[in-house]
Amino acid sequence: MADIAVMGYGTVGSGVVKVLETNKSLIGRRAGQEIFVKYVLDLRDFPGDPIEKKITHRFEDILEDASISVVVEVMGGLKPAYDFTRRALEAGKSVCTSNKELVATHGQELIEIAKKNNVNYLFEASCGGGIPIIRPLNSSLTAEDIDEISGILNGTTNYILTEMSEKGSDFETALKEAQELGYAERNPEADVEGYDACRKIAILSSLAFGRTVRYEDVYTEGITKITPLDIAYAKKMDMVIKLVASGFKTGEGGTKYNCLVSPFMIGFSHPLSRVNGVFNAVFVHGNTLGDSMFYGSGAGSLPTASAVVGDVVDCVRHLGKTITIIWDSEKLVLSDIKTVSRSFFLRVPSKDLDRAKELFPVKEVIRLDSSSDEVGIVTDVISEEAFERAANSLGTVISRIRIAI
Amino acid sequence: MADIAVMGYGTVGSGVVKVLETNKSLIGRRAGQEIFVKYVLDLRDFPGDPIEKKITHRFEDILEDASISVVVEVMGGLKPAYDFTRRALEAGKSVCTSNKELVATHGQELIEIAKKNNVNYLFEASCGGGIPIIRPLNSSLTAEDIDEISGILNGTTNYILTEMSEKGSDFETALKEAQELGYAERNPEADVEGYDACRKIAILSSLAFGRTVRYEDVYTEGITKITPLDIAYAKKMDMVIKLVASGFKTGEGGTKYNCLVSPFMIGFSHPLSRVNGVFNAVFVHGNTLGDSMFYGSGAGSLPTASAVVGDVVDCVRHLGKTITIIWDSEKLVLSDIKTVSRSFFLRVPSKDLDRAKELFPVKEVIRLDSSSDEVGIVTDVISEEAFERAANSLGTVISRIRIAI
Repeated sequence: MADIAVMGYGTVGSGVVKVLETNKSLIGRRAGQEIFVKYVLDLRDFPGDPIEKKITHRFEDILEDASISVVVEVMGGLKPAYDFTRRALEAGKSVCTSNKELVATHGQELIEIAKKNNVNYLFEASCGGGIPIIRPLNSSLTAEDIDEISGILNGTTNYILTEMSEKGSDFETALKEAQELGYAERNPEADVEGYDACRKIAILSSLAFGRTVRYEDVYTEGITKITPLDIAYAKKMDMVIKLVASGFKTGEGGTKYNCLVSPFMIGFSHPLSRVNGVFNAVFVHGNTLGDSMFYGSGAGSLPTASAVVGDVVDCVRHLGKTITIIWDSEKLVLSDIKTVSRSFFLRVPSKDLDRAKELFPVKEVIRLDSSSDEVGIVTDVISEEAFERAANSLGTVISRIRIAI
Repeated sequence: MADIAVMGYGTVGSGVVKVLETNKSLIGRRAGQEIFVKYVLDLRDFPGDPIEKKITHRFEDILEDASISVVVEVMGGLKPAYDFTRRALEAGKSVCTSNKELVATHGQELIEIAKKNNVNYLFEASCGGGIPIIRPLNSSLTAEDIDEISGILNGTTNYILTEMSEKGSDFETALKEAQELGYAERNPEADVEGYDACRKIAILSSLAFGRTVRYEDVYTEGITKITPLDIAYAKKMDMVIKLVASGFKTGEGGTKYNCLVSPFMIGFSHPLSRVNGVFNAVFVHGNTLGDSMFYGSGAGSLPTASAVVGDVVDCVRHLGKTITIIWDSEKLVLSDIKTVSRSFFLRVPSKDLDRAKELFPVKEVIRLDSSSDEVGIVTDVISEEAFERAANSLGTVISRIRIAI
């Protein structure tokens, strides 16, 4: 029997206990031994809950119990999660987490500490909820030179954009509905401003490219400025608007990298275009594999918990042995986003179309209806810097959205 | 340095050598040591080829060379692949393969032999080409009670059906085109009759459910009878026709299983519906994870080779340790397909519609145009046996296709 502890009895923590209970015999069979939750660490008590008697308020109870081989950290945030994780690893206990903030901030260091102590720090649930993507990156796509990893990594914003697209509602209305359904927090900033997706793509890019991508270096733009009119143009062009987080090779010979989070217009031939509602997906392009995509529930108590428990099983299978994760402390040098080139969509007042044609490499002009006093423009490929310069010169750009090819 | 041997220098074998060469330093870094191809076993010589000097015609050269820790078996077929694999494993060498026929026939036994000898028998490339699905099943979805695994597992048939759907061509024309493009073999039986998909779903179901599914027990129906008219009806109903291979729980309480390969009509809300051309995808439903899907290149020299090389890296990382694969020799008892219930689509002469309404639980009648002398019918959920009985009573069913919900 493998004794484990769960730190944090919130949405994911209670899900972990539930998944372990629901699929107990299957999980025990796959781990090679029964997995038993000995402690649940939380500041609160849970009278009447089945885990009532397992609750401890002292981290040291877990740390000092030599029988505990795996610790689940689903507290979230950096404090005290970072300190607890470090100390657990140093005490020879593996740690499994869904804590994207901690992994994006200290993941590389914690992996190193785990390695030194012959234990594991696993974080499948930190990106894309229940979608297996971390393990495929670490263990399956090992023959690939990955040149792009792009994802719809935030269920809240994808739900909002899907609602806006299907019902024609504006951002505020769709956000309110998402909040009422529990898909968005009362303070939705981390989701709608792209901060959540930013941390996730920093983690995924670090693993895909093998060096550290600091989330602070990732250009991040949210979806708060997207309007029903933007979406109407996208529809007219047979495209959708998605919040895409992407890490990719750029520059000549693909020797540089860039990483960003931004709304993108995507054509329906792209696999990510069909990912709707609270679903998430991660698209990977490798030099010999070509396109691949991993799709599934991006959030939710049980799917995320399922990924955490999958990591627990892997830790139990690998007691005394560290699973290889290639994530160097060396920083991945990101090129300035200004140097990245792509097509853009922009809206301008009809009266400025001629001037816009002088300033931008206009590829296509889109009119929603003939009486409208504005037009949409699709540009040819142009650098972010040149686009910005032209937009400033024009001075009357109503909105602009990047286009994914 | 890890010395390996490649058995079979055909499409996949030459791809393996190419992938190892192309991404040499990355692969070496991920494996923890350089991977070096010491032998290539083939009956032929390859004068002028970079591997010319590595060619051997004697399996014993590989078997008796103690420096060889991993053998890649990409010969295909059972003879002599089975014998060579068994002997390599017994000699303490791990084996990685893309040979679905061998895995579907002797996989369980070979996994056991590998375990006894502290080596590995890995077969990521046997299902879905380059799509990582075997490893996620073995190592990621370990917290899940999987109730369904369904896939588009054959690129040839998916290409043909996509062409028929997009261009309105008939089966023979689409097949001929696929053959000209190299997507279909000159003898296409294994693909178009579903035999290839049958072996793959037997492997995937065995892993998903942990017991042995014999491919001989899988009900298998190909796509040769699908006509442009069937596809026209599907379009009218906002559906597509796909060759789906599926293993799923059935019966009350989900305690029984069934497994089949058959053309299905699928609605566009199902993730598999958008998988077109030579792409493959595997859909998995788990009791706590919900829906997930893995999508990518289903075939081709390099994607398949990439999956083989990923397995080689995993073998090198796990020298002396067997990676857990749960696949019991106990047979998974499959319920008789006659007892499985679902909706069906069928076409009948217009004159027989009234009689059909008496025999089938008709849910919807579809007319392609008012002058047509036939109609389409969608039934409510009905057992395969009851459907068959009704169809025999009517005697004039033009075609029938299963519907996936």
